[in-house]
Amino acid sequence: MTGTGARKTGGLFLSFEGIDGSGKSTQARALATALQQQGREVVLTREPGGSPGAEEIRALVLNGDPDRWSAETEILLFTAARRDHLERTILPALERGAVVICDRFADSTRMYQGLSRGDLREVVDRLHALMIGREPDITLLIDMDPEAGLSRALSRTGAEERFETFGLALQLAMRQGYLDLAETYADRFRIVDGAGDVGTVHARVQATLPELFEAPA
Amino acid sequence: MTGTGARKTGGLFLSFEGIDGSGKSTQARALATALQQQGREVVLTREPGGSPGAEEIRALVLNGDPDRWSAETEILLFTAARRDHLERTILPALERGAVVICDRFADSTRMYQGLSRGDLREVVDRLHALMIGREPDITLLIDMDPEAGLSRALSRTGAEERFETFGLALQLAMRQGYLDLAETYADRFRIVDGAGDVGTVHARVQATLPELFEAPA
Repeated sequence: MTGTGARKTGGLFLSFEGIDGSGKSTQARALATALQQQGREVVLTREPGGSPGAEEIRALVLNGDPDRWSAETEILLFTAARRDHLERTILPALERGAVVICDRFADSTRMYQGLSRGDLREVVDRLHALMIGREPDITLLIDMDPEAGLSRALSRTGAEERFETFGLALQLAMRQGYLDLAETYADRFRIVDGAGDVGTVHARVQATLPELFEAPA
Repeated sequence: MTGTGARKTGGLFLSFEGIDGSGKSTQARALATALQQQGREVVLTREPGGSPGAEEIRALVLNGDPDRWSAETEILLFTAARRDHLERTILPALERGAVVICDRFADSTRMYQGLSRGDLREVVDRLHALMIGREPDITLLIDMDPEAGLSRALSRTGAEERFETFGLALQLAMRQGYLDLAETYADRFRIVDGAGDVGTVHARVQATLPELFEAPA
């Protein structure tokens, strides 16, 4: 059943953020399944990408020589992709009363740019204010001890390369970057401890979303 | 000879603007040729596009269904292309002391957006200030009676379609849009009468650029 109840409560825009290996994508899927089992309409999406146009822009940015775009051009391309994703996927779903679960949103751009080109953080924020405007209603930060997150990421195919590129020091800096964002945007961030198995963390996710899940009897 | 004289006088960034059929592209080429004959290094480029990355973005925007991108997303994509063009083609050429001649630059975006989505003119200007910053040193507006410009455009292959899409009323509005921009940016705009044959208009272009051409003896 695509519940009328869902329409009554209106749309809700949730994002998941976290470092590589934090389990955020797994948790986003688990949350989507749990809400669908309640009869809610759920749109599970991700960035960069999430709409046909945004996926084309994603391919343009991510394929080819990593140095082919400057940081500034890349930010513009990602903002174009985000605008398309917002217009074509997220806002129409929210208008229908769906729960939108987005694996990464603007906070990922803030965190990565804050680390790699700190001088561009203000540009990123001004560009967001000018062309995007919208933030998630709730952002779930799956917080993870970087050493544990890294070993989890390494167990996935192709992750060795990521390890060599980024390493533990960067994982630590990214975790801190996210914790700083959670402080800056305290009104919408909720921090979930990412330690433990999928079910354990999922139970924590549910507990942090009383808007969507009744307290257990 | 790639003159040391060229280096002494430093780089100069010129743009050509004008309605369809005004002859601006022909005049841009004629000016490039005349300057090369003087021994100047000239980089003749165009927008959208003008660098390998910007050409890829151009293809993404212009190919396919014209409604696939919203006005806002399109502005972001064109700004990303402009940023790449500026970084990779225009600024390096200016640093070498070249004359950069650009067939359309940001004024084209301002003019088209001002006509089609007037509410976005401020967004276009703020985005330009944030991500581009640079204006041409001199903008040559090839001003043209729209009826004459239209009949010239119609003599080119495929121009009938353009005629049906846009028509005379829009050509008149575009001309006025450019004249308004010339007033707003009076410090860098120079208006050239586009009536007459290529040589006649080229002589006017030279006369309006005393920085580059000696007065005839």
